[in-house]
Parts: sequence; structure tokens; C-alpha cells
Amino acid sequence: MVEPGTDDRPFGLADVDEGFAMAVADDAGRAVLADLAAGLPADRVLTDPDTVRPYVHDEAEWAEHGSPVAVVRPRSTAEVAAVVRACARHWVAVVPRGAGTGLSGGANAVDGCVVLSLERMRDILEINPEERLAVVQPGVVNDDLRAACAERGLWYPPDPASAPWATIGGNVATNAGGLCCVKYGVTGDYVLALEIVTAAGEIVRVGRRTAKGVAGYDLAALLVGSEGTLAVITEITVKLRPARTAPPRTVVGFFDTLADCGAAVAAVTAAGLQPAALELIDRHCLHAVNEWKHAGLPEDAAALLLAQTDLAEPAAGAEADAIRAAFEANGARDVMVSTDLVEAEALFDARRLSYPALEQRGDAVLTEDVCLPRGKLAEMLGRVDAIGERHGILIANLAHAGDGNLHPLIIVPHGDDAARAHAQAAFDEIVSSAIELGGTVTGEHGVGLLKRAGMRRELDPGSLALQRAIKAALDPNDILNPGKVIG
Amino acid sequence: MVEPGTDDRPFGLADVDEGFAMAVADDAGRAVLADLAAGLPADRVLTDPDTVRPYVHDEAEWAEHGSPVAVVRPRSTAEVAAVVRACARHWVAVVPRGAGTGLSGGANAVDGCVVLSLERMRDILEINPEERLAVVQPGVVNDDLRAACAERGLWYPPDPASAPWATIGGNVATNAGGLCCVKYGVTGDYVLALEIVTAAGEIVRVGRRTAKGVAGYDLAALLVGSEGTLAVITEITVKLRPARTAPPRTVVGFFDTLADCGAAVAAVTAAGLQPAALELIDRHCLHAVNEWKHAGLPEDAAALLLAQTDLAEPAAGAEADAIRAAFEANGARDVMVSTDLVEAEALFDARRLSYPALEQRGDAVLTEDVCLPRGKLAEMLGRVDAIGERHGILIANLAHAGDGNLHPLIIVPHGDDAARAHAQAAFDEIVSSAIELGGTVTGEHGVGLLKRAGMRRELDPGSLALQRAIKAALDPNDILNPGKVIG
Repeated sequence: MVEPGTDDRPFGLADVDEGFAMAVADDAGRAVLADLAAGLPADRVLTDPDTVRPYVHDEAEWAEHGSPVAVVRPRSTAEVAAVVRACARHWVAVVPRGAGTGLSGGANAVDGCVVLSLERMRDILEINPEERLAVVQPGVVNDDLRAACAERGLWYPPDPASAPWATIGGNVATNAGGLCCVKYGVTGDYVLALEIVTAAGEIVRVGRRTAKGVAGYDLAALLVGSEGTLAVITEITVKLRPARTAPPRTVVGFFDTLADCGAAVAAVTAAGLQPAALELIDRHCLHAVNEWKHAGLPEDAAALLLAQTDLAEPAAGAEADAIRAAFEANGARDVMVSTDLVEAEALFDARRLSYPALEQRGDAVLTEDVCLPRGKLAEMLGRVDAIGERHGILIANLAHAGDGNLHPLIIVPHGDDAARAHAQAAFDEIVSSAIELGGTVTGEHGVGLLKRAGMRRELDPGSLALQRAIKAALDPNDILNPGKVIG
Repeated sequence: MVEPGTDDRPFGLADVDEGFAMAVADDAGRAVLADLAAGLPADRVLTDPDTVRPYVHDEAEWAEHGSPVAVVRPRSTAEVAAVVRACARHWVAVVPRGAGTGLSGGANAVDGCVVLSLERMRDILEINPEERLAVVQPGVVNDDLRAACAERGLWYPPDPASAPWATIGGNVATNAGGLCCVKYGVTGDYVLALEIVTAAGEIVRVGRRTAKGVAGYDLAALLVGSEGTLAVITEITVKLRPARTAPPRTVVGFFDTLADCGAAVAAVTAAGLQPAALELIDRHCLHAVNEWKHAGLPEDAAALLLAQTDLAEPAAGAEADAIRAAFEANGARDVMVSTDLVEAEALFDARRLSYPALEQRGDAVLTEDVCLPRGKLAEMLGRVDAIGERHGILIANLAHAGDGNLHPLIIVPHGDDAARAHAQAAFDEIVSSAIELGGTVTGEHGVGLLKRAGMRRELDPGSLALQRAIKAALDPNDILNPGKVIG
């Protein structure tokens, strides 16, 4: 709510439990609706409550959201600019969103805002093998870009678990990670240039198309991960890699304790190995996938580690053997090395299905996203276990283990208010533990709403002050996704 | 010079031809000298003109420089903060510098400034194999860090040609490139965290030690390449890679035209190959190295391409064969594949020695640093040739060809004013051509002073406005390296 004297923004966040109702347009809301109606084709602007409802929040169901005065679905950069200018004119908040697959509430509506959905700007404008780059509109779905690149012998590596639905614009806005970033880096490592619409509604190009370039401050890097709080991204130029040709080799190890898993991950890193994926899936996730998909995955181990090497033979064989040795030296049993693509795909499917498998059981899942120094992963897993026990709640674990990026999934039966309170406490304690162990409160999901408090505890106050200064410089009236990240 | 009404900063740049004289300290200068004397051990502050002289410019001998009131060589972050606070108090400019190997004038003194040399902060604070990172002070020399990492089985890839002298702080401030970035990326790709001193003299930590992290805006990425205009970098955390173990294979091809070289580079890229270096050295460079070092390099070809593959065998052999095929399909003769480390090192030495070899002949060398879309490299090389002919001056060419990063070296006999004027015109025409062909005016050397005008022509005015807004937000009194980059 607006606190007089500390915050004079004309919009706030609705209480999480109030459900959804369209905002009653105040003077500013009515004025911006009139401007949007005058400046855009009618089909761009949605105000019907039933149509608007799916646009008011992302997948972070625990995050609060407000009620917009409208959802706008522009089809061009010029239309985006027109929307932002209308909002700027009347001091109305703009909340950009892609597919809404975020897990931190970063795309959640605030009261009285205009939700700016980029979903209809979904053209792949260029795929260029000679320059190894692609140019896309923000609404292009990650998997669609990857498929189009593959047809040209190219590869766009960033592969968040939401890749079948998530958009490149959203991936850039959150600096999305994924499975292959342990070897190939995150979304930001692939962003060359952006076209943006500023808080004043101006269209600006930043970055470059060349392989290297240092002309001026790296604005593209600053905008990556800024969650729509500094500008609206309307076009993205990404660098590509040549397609991988070697069939991957997969190594699976089953461990009786999570601590052994953590030690095995540290051993892989210390041995100088570079798997193209190194994932952890615990017993609770495997059980949920078995229940849902009858996958027949073994449930007797505490967790499995799933590694993949994509080197050419015979280096792949040597790397797989070295990973196997690191697993076995740290307590793994039943280590399997597979070159069978179908078998390997089934295991990675289990990884990808874990989250929806837990969700579809009818429970609420509160997703954590802490990233630890790799050497602290075992200790952190032990702490998560203890936190779950202390609160009497189930916490399943998935991890991009090779990066130290842990996703404890806090499971709460729907309607169980006591469990919900315990889950919230567990969430906060996991955040505290990550900070204590030298980690970060968000490895790849972003700050959004859920990690604002954690971020303030994690970062140097001087860093927060610099961030506020940049936000104020680029969005002086605080109209771009207010209240998110540093807001 | 100060233009009343447009710029009220109390310092300007001396004319390039005035030579060096210590600034006559005005009131602000006297006040800051008194504060420095009071707050720092006496050996930190240099004011003797002979001692100060080496600190007033970098290697960009064509860039103007001014005269400082003092050079300060702090030994700790706290001392850096004390220097910046003293300068902030009296509105005196601070010009940070590393080893002064820059080629754009980014470290050049402005009149009345304090030059802040980080050369004495040269401790390697940590090399951590488990986390694959190193923490260093800014004055650590690039090659020293690389050697220390190698002892631990680790590799810090960024390898600017100045690596034997250049410091990590300077590398970060300019986002330095090098030979291996065609496969392994530039300095910025390895920066995880920074400790900085802000324009207000506050010590702040930005970034993280974890493999991934998205808590807040990526301030570390913004500071990389900002050339000391946004903060002074006092500590750097870099990510490392496992040491390479495969002996490299080198492929050398001799070409009769530069255009053929450009076409061969495009063919290597289009074939999906990923050499760990792909360098171009033209006949003029080879001749200079032969003259200097009696190296016996062939001078009859227009240029050679020098590629290296660092894959494990047999993939290295296959990649070398594919590179050879791409060279031969584009007019190369005498393609040689070498697994002899000594022979390969001799060729890379020729690459590294080209610039000093040209310089030591007693000519002035005006170094260009444009980066082109790879597919435009052949056309750009043709344009450089034509520009040299039109002005009747010799332009030698070196290139990180695989990145499209071209270094035309404009050669001017000392004291030949007419040639100097032609060289300046050629410099500007090369910049114009790079922009016309969709390239950038600086691939890796930075904007400094020499590329300010070019940058303003290259970038979207909206991008320049955003950069100015960020500069004003982080350094409102414009005391940090004023006049450089966007200043």
C-alpha cells in the first residue's frame, strides 16, 4: 500500500489473498485507456476481466499481484513505444511480460498498471550462419528459436526448463539459466544487442552485431536480467554456436545421501572436468515422476546425479570414465554410462518433469533458487534437509549441481495454512543459509517480488545504492515494472 | 579547453604538442596535495616532474594528454578510497591507470588531475581450484596471473598482446581482448565480482563468487570496459577454466591477396569450426619482424593466416584438416599443419612481435582497432588498402581475423608532418568504413580519447543519452577520468 511520505507512486500491490479483480480506473487509468484506444488497433487492448486474468501473474503463485487497467498485446516496436509513451504521459505503470513462466513474480501486475504482453511479437527476423547470430522479436519461444537454429546447423544454448513455453524476451529480462550453462553459460552470455523502448517511450539500439566491441558502456549487459525495470526489450540479437555433432554420453550415479552428491560434484569440478550438464534429482522428485508418468525410476537412493559429456570420441569416453570415477569415489552405487540417446533422454525428461510432477499432485510448490559456491553444495543440502525436518514439511530438491544452483521445492498441501506458514519460514531460512555460505539468493529465477528482501540482505548496501541510482537515472518516474528488483 | 557555458569542469586537456610540464597547482590542486600529504604515507605521492612523466599517458602516442598535480601509488583499497575522497572534496579529477599499455589514451592525464596508479596493488589474493576462480588486486600483471593459475592446473584465458606487462585492472577497465577470445571470449566474460571505489570514495562490492547469480542489476558487467569513468576497480574476482592439456595444432596458410584471407576466415566460420586462435599477419608485419629478429619469415605472400586448434586428438586433426581445406578453397598456397610446439610458438611470436617490430624502426604507429562482421572482413581489408594508397602512406595489417577484429597499423616516419596529417585522415576513413560496413570503431582497445568521435558516430543517439545518464548518476561531479569514453 502507498505510505504517505515515503512513496508517492500512484499504484501499489494488491494483497495476495484478495484474488483478481480489474482495477477500477482512476483518472490516470481512464486517460491512459483513452490514449491506448486512440493510438492502437482495437484488438491490441484487452480489458475484459476473464481475458485479462491469465496475464496478471507469472508461475510464482506465492507472489502477490495487483490488478491492471488493461493488458496490451502490441505487434510492433512502434506500438510498444506508443504504449509506453501513453503510460509515461499519465504516470501509469508498465509491467512487461513474456510467456509468464517466471518463478519470482517479476511479471506480476501492480494495481492500475498496463500489462504489456510481448507474446505477439514472435518473428525470427534473421538466422545468420556466417555471423553466427540470430535476431528475434521478444515473443519468440525459446524452443522455437533452438529448432530454427538447428535447421541451419547452429545452436542457441540457453535451455531453461521452461524452454517449450518461455520467450527469449523473458529469458533475457531474467538472464535465464538452464541445464547446459554449467559448460556453455547463461542467456546473458549470448546477448549481443538489444532494441529497447525506454521509460520515455523512445526506441533505442544498444550493443553490436560484431563478435567483439567496446564502444561505450555495455548497456546490453546492464539490461540483461533487469526484469523490465529499466526498459522494455523489443528485439534481441543473440550469438550462436555451431551445432553439436557428437552424440552425448550420459553418466548416472545413485547416492545414499545428499551430502555424497555434493561431494561428488565438488570432485568433478576439482578434477577439471567440464560436463555439458550436471544435474541432481532427489528421491521425492523421482517418486513424483513415477507416480505421474509410471516411469519406473529407482526410488531407493536419496538422489541421483545426471551428467552429460558432449565431447567428440574418444575424449567423451575418457570424460565419462573420469566422471564415473568421481561419482564412485564419493559413494555412488550403480553408476551407469549410457550412449543410448533414448535412455539418456528419459533421464533428462525426469529432470524436466520433476517440477510439474510435484505440482500436478495438487500441492502448492514454493520454488527456491539459491546458488552456492560449488564447495558448499553438500553443506547446503544438509541444511535444507534440516530446515524441512524442523518445520515438518517436505522439501524436494532439484539442482543444476555443477553450478551450485539449488532448487529446493517446498511442498504444501493446498488449503493447509499452518504448512503454508512453515513453508514461508523455511523459504526464508534457506535464503539465510545461502547468504551465510557465501551464495546468492537467486541463481537464475530473478529477484521479482519473492527475492527482494533476500537481495537486500545479500548485497552490499553500496551496491544497492548504485542500483537505485541507475534505476532513477533510466526510469526517473518509476513507471517500468515498479516494485520489482530494486524498486 | 573549457568552453564557458557548456562545460564548467575545472580541468581540460593540454594540447598534444605542448609536451609535458607539471600542472601549476591552483587552489584545488594545492588543497588536494595537502590532503594527500596528510592522509597517506609520503612514498605514495609523486610530484617530481621526472618521476611523474612516465605516468601521464599510455601507449597511444597520438592521443593528447594533460599535466597532473600528482601521481599517487596506493598500496591498499583504503588508500585508494582516501585518494578519491580527497579529490571529490576538492573537485579534482582522478585518472586511474594500470601499466599504461592502453592504445586509446584512456589512461592519459588531464590538466590538474591526480593520476591514480594501481601498479603497487599487485597481490594474487586467492586461486581456488574447487570454485575455479581467482581473486586479484588490480595491479597484477596478466601473464603473472596466468602463470600462477597454470601451477594449479587452471587457466585464465584472456590474452591481450600486452599480457607480459598489462595489468588485470587495466584489462577489466578496457574489457581487453586478445588471441584466444575467438573461442574463449574476452576479459568481461571472466569477471565475476569487483571491489570498487565509487566517485564519492566509498568502497563497494558488486558481483558474486558463485557460478551463476541474478540478484540485482549486473553492475560488474556495466563496470567492465568503463575505462575508470564510473568507479576505480580495487579488486577483481575472475572465473577460471581447467588448464588445456592437448598440445595445440597450428595451421598456417599463405595468401596472395588480403581479400582471399577474408574469404578464408568467413569459410572457417561458416563451416562451424572453432579454432582457438585465427590471426592474420600481413607482409609488412612479417618484413618488420624479419628485419628486427632475422626470423626468416616468408615475405612473398600478401598475408598469412595462423589458426590453432586445441581439441583433443583425433578431433584436433580433423579440425586442422577442415581449416586447411577452408584455406585452400580460398586461394591459400603452402598450407602447413604443425604439431611442433617450437615451430608454432615461432609463428605466434611473429604475431606478437609485429607491433613492436614496426615501432622500433623509428616510425610512429597509429593503431586502429575496428571490428567488422566476419563476412565483411575481406571488403574492409580492401578498403584499408585503398585508403593507404589514396593517402600515400603505409598501412600494415594485423587482425584477430576470426573475430573480424582488424588492427590496421598506420605507419608515419617521425617528424613528417604531411604524412601525419594523411595518417589522421586515413584513421578517420577507416573508422567511417567500419561504421558503414556494420562494424564498430573499437573491438578491444577501448574508446579512451582516440575513439570518442567515432563512437558518437557509431552509436544510436539514444544509447549515448543513456550512457550519459548513467555517468551522471554514478559520477555526478564528473571527477572519474573525465573526458574519456562518454565524457
